[in-house]
Amino acid sequence: MKIAPISGFPEWLPEQRLVELHFLDTLRAKFESFGYASVETRSVEPLEQLLRKGETDKEIYVLRRLQAEADEENKNLGLHFDLTVPFARYVAQFRHQLTFPFKRYQIQKVWRGERPKEGRYREFYQADIDVVAERNLPLAFDAEMPLLLHEVLSALPIPKVKLHIGHRKVLEGAYQSIGIEDAALAMRIADKLDKVGEAGIHKMLLEEAKLTSVQADACVALSRVRTEDVSFADQVRKLGLSGTLLDEGLSELTFVMEALKGLPAGSAVADLHIARGFDYYTGTIYEGVMEGHESLGAVCSGGRYDDLVAGGGEKLPGIGVSVGVSRILGRLLPKGQLTASRKTPTCVLVALQAEEGRDESQKVARALRSRGICTEVFHEPARMDKQIRYAERKGIPFVWFPLGLSGGHEVKDIRQGTQAAADVQSWAPPAEDARPLVQAVSPAAAPR
Amino acid sequence: MKIAPISGFPEWLPEQRLVELHFLDTLRAKFESFGYASVETRSVEPLEQLLRKGETDKEIYVLRRLQAEADEENKNLGLHFDLTVPFARYVAQFRHQLTFPFKRYQIQKVWRGERPKEGRYREFYQADIDVVAERNLPLAFDAEMPLLLHEVLSALPIPKVKLHIGHRKVLEGAYQSIGIEDAALAMRIADKLDKVGEAGIHKMLLEEAKLTSVQADACVALSRVRTEDVSFADQVRKLGLSGTLLDEGLSELTFVMEALKGLPAGSAVADLHIARGFDYYTGTIYEGVMEGHESLGAVCSGGRYDDLVAGGGEKLPGIGVSVGVSRILGRLLPKGQLTASRKTPTCVLVALQAEEGRDESQKVARALRSRGICTEVFHEPARMDKQIRYAERKGIPFVWFPLGLSGGHEVKDIRQGTQAAADVQSWAPPAEDARPLVQAVSPAAAPR
Repeated sequence: MKIAPISGFPEWLPEQRLVELHFLDTLRAKFESFGYASVETRSVEPLEQLLRKGETDKEIYVLRRLQAEADEENKNLGLHFDLTVPFARYVAQFRHQLTFPFKRYQIQKVWRGERPKEGRYREFYQADIDVVAERNLPLAFDAEMPLLLHEVLSALPIPKVKLHIGHRKVLEGAYQSIGIEDAALAMRIADKLDKVGEAGIHKMLLEEAKLTSVQADACVALSRVRTEDVSFADQVRKLGLSGTLLDEGLSELTFVMEALKGLPAGSAVADLHIARGFDYYTGTIYEGVMEGHESLGAVCSGGRYDDLVAGGGEKLPGIGVSVGVSRILGRLLPKGQLTASRKTPTCVLVALQAEEGRDESQKVARALRSRGICTEVFHEPARMDKQIRYAERKGIPFVWFPLGLSGGHEVKDIRQGTQAAADVQSWAPPAEDARPLVQAVSPAAAPR
Repeated sequence: MKIAPISGFPEWLPEQRLVELHFLDTLRAKFESFGYASVETRSVEPLEQLLRKGETDKEIYVLRRLQAEADEENKNLGLHFDLTVPFARYVAQFRHQLTFPFKRYQIQKVWRGERPKEGRYREFYQADIDVVAERNLPLAFDAEMPLLLHEVLSALPIPKVKLHIGHRKVLEGAYQSIGIEDAALAMRIADKLDKVGEAGIHKMLLEEAKLTSVQADACVALSRVRTEDVSFADQVRKLGLSGTLLDEGLSELTFVMEALKGLPAGSAVADLHIARGFDYYTGTIYEGVMEGHESLGAVCSGGRYDDLVAGGGEKLPGIGVSVGVSRILGRLLPKGQLTASRKTPTCVLVALQAEEGRDESQKVARALRSRGICTEVFHEPARMDKQIRYAERKGIPFVWFPLGLSGGHEVKDIRQGTQAAADVQSWAPPAEDARPLVQAVSPAAAPR
């Protein structure tokens, strides 16, 4: 039988998986520290639920039982392609058992039947946070999203991620004020700035959106506005744009940028060219780009959606962001730019010096484990060099000898070669050796 | 659009998910403490890989892209139905990058297109550990599996799980010694003891396996052997059974039971009636049953497979066990027999007493979070009773007032109603309030 990778379905070696686990643990810890509760939704949704959002019908994997009967009831189930659509359904379904504002995080795999390329997989991890409220969703959450994103992304051993923050109401309001009728189309074109450049979007605005030259000029001028403080509002007004919706958008975006003023310079920028692809965004929108990896596209993104979740006829406004865990790891892991200090959680290997010593070695392991030290006992009595080589190959830092040279317990740091007497009840590894250490490796020093 | 549960695809409320997370965290921590490394495999395997094991073809979900082209290359992908088959493929694929004995744990969802009923889902969590070795797999691992299972299951807030340990070589050897030709068939019948009783298996052995009455009597007598020590071997020999394979099995099972003698009484029993369904088991086999929930069937199971993993023509012997996380939770959660002390990770809600206080409230939250205390700031200035009610509804134990009655920082335990001055840099919750507490509720006291 052919044993081979399947394109678009990445898998990691144990030492790479330790890096992935470190990412998932960090995301979870930060999400929880802000009071977000974990939710997992089933992997499947009815097809009509998945198709609600439009524009994604080509990407869905549909399930069929291998031995499906004619009366098969589940023929319309598909794997979810993101975590927002299932979450919207979950909130509507369990509405009366949830407390609002409902803050949840969700870290799960999603599937898309797309053609795989770098940064685009068929199976990948997303890590989302969302808040859904009844009636009004306070602007505080529009500010919390980038604050939390900054916190979690700067806790990861990855290049700096710059957050670009835009606003749908600003774009729509500006477009309205100069007489553009199909604001959605103009937005989608303006969003392509990074791909086709200013001249490119100007041309598309004229040809595809049928704008006048004056209108297209204004759109391009608007897309140039990006400031790290709240001066974007003045810049927009200087373009001669005005109107109620625009004012509302500028005021909301000002609130958000004010709340971010404590972040280090270069962390967040108000950016009026970003628009995001999905139609359901209605206010603040986010995109994060990793420095030196701009070609990868957004490594995190999201926005406010006031009309996506419907519960009993009533709209429940929401806001959320998603971190593209697999996209980041898929870039940095294969290049060796992230490493774990070992291939196993094991911190101590207890040597098995002779068959009669098995009980004693097991006793040592139990004692160390009871104090939170990950420990394994070598599986058979064997020559010491064989046992030490096993530890070396897995990167296990310490080997414990129940019967050391002195006749008592000794522990050897196999990296340093030092060996010293140790007490089972009190010995502990240095803090940095307790768990596998995950670190960035500069591109120049990366092995692959 | 119809919003409804899908039969066989369970979902949990946030407070139930906290219980599930506690289970998954405990499993992971215990697995890692024994030196098992995490692996995740892709959710899909080529269909021919999934069908290798036989007898499961009706249960597989096959993927199809919604807009599949005629030349679709992925038409033969199916969702994995367990974690053993993908793991065997993973080891063969990455053989030259792994260090043996390779000890891995794997906690993932699996899918089976079966008719759902209690304890049987279409999507569910399994938590597996396996060891695969080159050439010989030491018996130490046959003993480590039940030791680790006992450790992890007794760390969970669930009824006691009794481990039943059998041995394929004992059964096969015994059957051979009395002239039974189709040992596999006799084993499958003997395994049904719990379902059909002794008279039932005796009848099936006569009618289906065409055994003589003497042979069937011996099989039934063998299936009665169960001892918590190593006396099972004498009992088998007293039945007049003998032979090389039988002796090998008895000696291996004796080694395992010897290693378990330190466990509390009633934790593990050598049991010669269990056989397990899968054909690939070749030695020690395991089954765990939860006290008071025998009707649920095994909540964990596994065994040794010497011939499942093939790497470059060579056999790699393995052994593993799987914990049926969803089966356990699916029984205890809906009945309210497991609870979390709150509905969110949040330990402290910082009140927002007025819009001007927003910066100060955020500062408090940052300081508490930096010391590992999960903290959220109320999202809008509002009446205190509203903010406290929000905390109560989510079960958040503490509300922090940056401007208390005394004019300084105060923290209120909303369960006790007590309020006291507190210092942002040093205050900490009691240890039992730091994280949501997951506990068992006796059936009599369970709310549902």
